[in-house]
Amino acid sequence: MKNFLSVENVQSIRALVDKALDYKKNRLLDNHLGTGKTLGMLFFNPSLRTRVSTQVAARNLGMEVIVLNVEKEGWQLELDEGIVMDGSSTEHIKEAAAVLGQYFDILAVRTFPTLKDKTEDYSERIIGQFLKHAGVPVVSLESATLHPLQSLADLVTIKETFQEKRRPKVVMTWAPHVKPLPQSVPNSFAEWMNGWDEADFLITHPEGYELETKYTHNAKIEYNQDKALEGADYIYVKNWSSVTEYGKIINRDASWMITSRKIAMTNNSRVMHCLPVRRNVVIADEVLDGPNSIVIQQAGNRVWATQAVLAEILQNN
Amino acid sequence: MKNFLSVENVQSIRALVDKALDYKKNRLLDNHLGTGKTLGMLFFNPSLRTRVSTQVAARNLGMEVIVLNVEKEGWQLELDEGIVMDGSSTEHIKEAAAVLGQYFDILAVRTFPTLKDKTEDYSERIIGQFLKHAGVPVVSLESATLHPLQSLADLVTIKETFQEKRRPKVVMTWAPHVKPLPQSVPNSFAEWMNGWDEADFLITHPEGYELETKYTHNAKIEYNQDKALEGADYIYVKNWSSVTEYGKIINRDASWMITSRKIAMTNNSRVMHCLPVRRNVVIADEVLDGPNSIVIQQAGNRVWATQAVLAEILQNN
Amino acid sequence: MKNFLSVENVQSIRALVDKALDYKKNRLLDNHLGTGKTLGMLFFNPSLRTRVSTQVAARNLGMEVIVLNVEKEGWQLELDEGIVMDGSSTEHIKEAAAVLGQYFDILAVRTFPTLKDKTEDYSERIIGQFLKHAGVPVVSLESATLHPLQSLADLVTIKETFQEKRRPKVVMTWAPHVKPLPQSVPNSFAEWMNGWDEADFLITHPEGYELETKYTHNAKIEYNQDKALEGADYIYVKNWSSVTEYGKIINRDASWMITSRKIAMTNNSRVMHCLPVRRNVVIADEVLDGPNSIVIQQAGNRVWATQAVLAEILQNN
Repeated sequence: MKNFLSVENVQSIRALVDKALDYKKNRLLDNHLGTGKTLGMLFFNPSLRTRVSTQVAARNLGMEVIVLNVEKEGWQLELDEGIVMDGSSTEHIKEAAAVLGQYFDILAVRTFPTLKDKTEDYSERIIGQFLKHAGVPVVSLESATLHPLQSLADLVTIKETFQEKRRPKVVMTWAPHVKPLPQSVPNSFAEWMNGWDEADFLITHPEGYELETKYTHNAKIEYNQDKALEGADYIYVKNWSSVTEYGKIINRDASWMITSRKIAMTNNSRVMHCLPVRRNVVIADEVLDGPNSIVIQQAGNRVWATQAVLAEILQNN
Repeated sequence: MKNFLSVENVQSIRALVDKALDYKKNRLLDNHLGTGKTLGMLFFNPSLRTRVSTQVAARNLGMEVIVLNVEKEGWQLELDEGIVMDGSSTEHIKEAAAVLGQYFDILAVRTFPTLKDKTEDYSERIIGQFLKHAGVPVVSLESATLHPLQSLADLVTIKETFQEKRRPKVVMTWAPHVKPLPQSVPNSFAEWMNGWDEADFLITHPEGYELETKYTHNAKIEYNQDKALEGADYIYVKNWSSVTEYGKIINRDASWMITSRKIAMTNNSRVMHCLPVRRNVVIADEVLDGPNSIVIQQAGNRVWATQAVLAEILQNN
Repeated sequence: MKNFLSVENVQSIRALVDKALDYKKNRLLDNHLGTGKTLGMLFFNPSLRTRVSTQVAARNLGMEVIVLNVEKEGWQLELDEGIVMDGSSTEHIKEAAAVLGQYFDILAVRTFPTLKDKTEDYSERIIGQFLKHAGVPVVSLESATLHPLQSLADLVTIKETFQEKRRPKVVMTWAPHVKPLPQSVPNSFAEWMNGWDEADFLITHPEGYELETKYTHNAKIEYNQDKALEGADYIYVKNWSSVTEYGKIINRDASWMITSRKIAMTNNSRVMHCLPVRRNVVIADEVLDGPNSIVIQQAGNRVWATQAVLAEILQNN
């Protein structure tokens, strides 16, 4: 693995999940792997879990970490090619990426979608420019369309909590929210579940919230949430905005919130969410504070997932 | 010591002061104590001394440090229980605290009072929620009502500068200021002085600036500053806003500023202040630039005080 | 070397350049020199290259690094002496500098000019106050009038790229820009070129853009850019605002932009710029994307230049 931008960069999901679980057992297992190497973390957007868990993961491997809040601590970057830079942008991303590649051994970038221009967002231009010009491995800390470090942590969490011999039934369900949110987490989770041969996967959402089939592939979609939840071992809860009416909220149906009544329909399902979660909008208090929620454990696993990815890159570059 | 939120968490003030002075003599004395452990520092409010001295202290013990400027780099947190989160708060403090507890071995939090709602401020709700949900030791980097790391550094400073056999007379005096300030530093200093058996303690302030007796206990209050300063070995200067007319400035009497005329009334008193200090409002230039001021040494001691506290926690958890 | 504020602090430019190139060959050559020491980096203004390259350099020497974004994470500082601090400034620079000197072993400061008051800017008051009150070595991360870490990296870049036995011809040329920029980079580059005996130096700019002779000394000035570029081995491109009409843009003549037509006049000149650079305003795409540009290599050398300076200070204090 040279870069980590999507599941497509992963040779064996199974091996990567196992590696993460190894680090969870012994965080300092490879604590000299990154000696003398520096991870640069660039945030174009705010972050809590990703920011912290990635720093901890890198330090567990002995790497130095430097965090940059772009546009707060640095300058506004120009993305367009061939432009006369007489406006507000101070530096072209070509130079920024190439220079940062001089300073860092791995470059990790977080960049949100505009939710206004689908073509722009789905072109992943920002992270693409870093990939093209940095000259060092690039890791996505969530991009406009995908959040692969989250998805890997999600698989790690399912793997470590499911003890039965059979394949678990995992249902990803849309839930209501007050603001239009990116599709990166559901896109990515779908993509990883499709690539993983250790679970059965089903998606449920109101009509109009269909995700790109580029990520969902042949995953079954069930528009009736109650029906979808029947027999679920895991509910993966997440809001997203519409792909077809790009970036819009087309439905806020509160009956899609995950409550204990919904849990009662499942096979005593564990409940997952990438966080942050709006309580009593997306998931009810009774569920988040109850025994079925594994959202904290899931967030904790972000460290081990990221440590596995960074180690893979360090070992192969 | 598991948590460090007030003097009540301290078994022996004397031992903790001595430990700080040991680190001042040899900063790398316990530089492997924190190996593989991470301190998370959360700032809800700005900080200079606390921010830097705590990082240095933690690194002296071999700990990793991650700093988070909450609400600048992260999200706005919800504090209320049972609320439907359809407003501007993106994450509940319950999840934020629990998740951070997954990443950090010690969680240090700075949070200022509103100075509008005394019941809210004195309930210490924010730090209380971290204590309840983080699952790891919590250290106050100044809370709504107390600043124990400052107080410990203050005692360390008195201890190292007072060479006589008798007990020093320490006078905490209110001084004027242009903005309403928290009561956390004076509350905390009073609490620590009451718990320390190595000095005599007197408080002086204009009427109406009485502090909570919960912190001042039986400390004598003298409303005449000149009289209070007679024979003082240490003057601890600090402004605070009114407790009874909560958060209000009820007096700006410039005659309470500490000048060389005031120093002349004392036993050649040393002058302390937690900083930042507004020159020629709280303390006159002539005093800050003169030989009686020990404010820089006092600020320097923040490192050793914090190092002692973190070491205690690392050794006992 | 105790402090590093200008070329005047350097005993031997040649030795310092060689030291930087040694670190480029082996970054961990002196990786225990800074053990137990902390570098404090204070940013009064934004920074990308300087921020990152300095952190990497310090870590290569085993130093701890703490970054402070003053006025974002801290307080507003008062600079005037004897003032009654009843306004918006919370802390006097005297205390801030002295306190930071308690926490850090080396203090690095970045502070831009106002470009409004030449006397104020050229007095270098902010960095001067740190020098006076910090009590520890002070390093400029670019001050109001100079940027010595950049200049050292520039000389390192010329030294490592010029392989011929003769002295290279280095031409510093003004170029147009949309905003008034400081004179710190050209002042500093002129000062260093004058002190270096390994190159011939020429300055070209439109009339009215004369720099202070305090920095340019006897350097030849040629007002005709085309004539200046004849036979150049290196073009050092930079915009600056007028010194005489202080801080003003008095000319935006687009014919001064560096294009391939300009390069054709030179001795196949290498093109340097400190970055960030506005494409197609200062330098044309065709040049920045072509084989003559060494701006990325030049930015990369910032690490080794800074590492040499920090090492010198660590070895002599």
